[in-house]
Amino acid sequence: MPEVTLVEVGLRDGLQNESRILSTSVKGQLAGLLMDAGVKELEVTSFVHPRWVPQLADATELIRTLPDRTDVRYRALVPNQKGLERALQTNVDEFAVFMSASETHNQKNINKGIDETFPVLQEVIQEVQNQGKRVRGYVSTVFGCPYEGEVPLSNTARICNRLLEMGVYELSLGDTIGVAVPNQVKEKLKALTQEIPAERLAGHFHDTRGTALANAYVSLELGITTLDSAFGGLGGCPYAPGAAGNVATEDLVYMLERMGVSTGIDLKKLCQAGWLAEEQLGKQLPSKVLQSVAAAEKKEESP
Amino acid sequence: MPEVTLVEVGLRDGLQNESRILSTSVKGQLAGLLMDAGVKELEVTSFVHPRWVPQLADATELIRTLPDRTDVRYRALVPNQKGLERALQTNVDEFAVFMSASETHNQKNINKGIDETFPVLQEVIQEVQNQGKRVRGYVSTVFGCPYEGEVPLSNTARICNRLLEMGVYELSLGDTIGVAVPNQVKEKLKALTQEIPAERLAGHFHDTRGTALANAYVSLELGITTLDSAFGGLGGCPYAPGAAGNVATEDLVYMLERMGVSTGIDLKKLCQAGWLAEEQLGKQLPSKVLQSVAAAEKKEESP
Repeated sequence: MPEVTLVEVGLRDGLQNESRILSTSVKGQLAGLLMDAGVKELEVTSFVHPRWVPQLADATELIRTLPDRTDVRYRALVPNQKGLERALQTNVDEFAVFMSASETHNQKNINKGIDETFPVLQEVIQEVQNQGKRVRGYVSTVFGCPYEGEVPLSNTARICNRLLEMGVYELSLGDTIGVAVPNQVKEKLKALTQEIPAERLAGHFHDTRGTALANAYVSLELGITTLDSAFGGLGGCPYAPGAAGNVATEDLVYMLERMGVSTGIDLKKLCQAGWLAEEQLGKQLPSKVLQSVAAAEKKEESP
Repeated sequence: MPEVTLVEVGLRDGLQNESRILSTSVKGQLAGLLMDAGVKELEVTSFVHPRWVPQLADATELIRTLPDRTDVRYRALVPNQKGLERALQTNVDEFAVFMSASETHNQKNINKGIDETFPVLQEVIQEVQNQGKRVRGYVSTVFGCPYEGEVPLSNTARICNRLLEMGVYELSLGDTIGVAVPNQVKEKLKALTQEIPAERLAGHFHDTRGTALANAYVSLELGITTLDSAFGGLGGCPYAPGAAGNVATEDLVYMLERMGVSTGIDLKKLCQAGWLAEEQLGKQLPSKVLQSVAAAEKKEESP
């Protein structure tokens, strides 16, 4: 049993931010490699409208190509009832709704105010529960908003409590633009865990400024044992070849395993997925461990 | 007054590991940009034999081109009496000796056993003190050795105590191959600070596996307020284009300043040095902040 649950979001949060669109068959291969490496919680896609995220337009098709695995949970994002209807025609195991802790980001991302968003998500959560399945809630911009800057913790707390009441089993707290630093994460999570049990919280850190692993470490110290990550550190900003997306699963697995925390993931096997993604995206991915394993292998090959 | 002292080691520890050799004039320009950004502790070069580190063969020449700045401390590595003699012909303000906490690494790096190294360093330290100047001690492989794996803390403690007795004012504890993880850093530093005051210790973390910033954060929590870093994250392994060297100064400055810890360094100005190094080395450097600032500027330029 792993002591930490890693939710692999590379195929969704990663690929949705990559400028090159991968084929359904390559995505299927990547999913296969991730599962071979021991990934059990696999967010595979999003049922947002293909106009907004063309990278994931093949959501239905992709899920249909995935093998039946009782030991792996396939997860998908659903923005609203319409998305859910499409998702329910596939064998998605778990769903996720999303909204932002800052009004402006919510407005720009979902085209609705925060309070207008609740009824939309309520409908989705209700319907998923009717199907006997679980819903996770993503809360974005918890540690900073590109439009509003600092986001008061009270915003986050209000949204978290409301989503829990509505029936989500877990809240993934997002550092969407990768601005968080460890003492801020500590302070916010300490306050939040006064109200909400740590078991209901997950950390979702982007590595735009290199702080994601430090933030993940601090979260873990506060008893948050579910962390989101993307293999290779997929999801970099298209404007910056080296800019990072989510914290890299490889780096997180390395850190945790060497800390004595079991993740259930085989690092060497995991690298296979990263290397295939690099080949298919035509660029180097930001994961440091991926690069250092590659360097070590090259060294062995050389005379 | 900065609350944390950052020792900028990019021109030495960074450049000595880059395969492309920069000209003395470019190094001088880089030093100038670093000082413009507020760097006060600047390790500029090493007086090891040019046969071993051709990248820094211009040590004497470089220091002679640097401006007289009473507010900046120019630092240089000296391996032995011979190196010191060369260094003493320049206006280096502060010297550093080095050795490893693991026998095999010390043997491979210095061509001597640990116990044979002490008298060599003793001579250097004595002579520097005769000149009324300070000497720092670098201890490598504190958190892991490429040949021996785990390195017992007792090795490190013994070497640190001996070097202090011999007269070094500070010990920089190196994660030379970038294998350390935060709980290990915490454990080792907690034990070490039982014997040695935290003010005498500095953290020197390489970012080979992405953990350097988390390790720096943990060090800071234990009262260690001197940290070594390299602008751009210079010093990557020549086998891996994306592999990182020292923790990137930009990333460290970002984290610290947002944590409310003053570094005295202007991040925007600091990026100028990183961009010049990228241009001159013909490759992208690993600092995440450097990339994200570059991306933000590109975005502003685009319509």
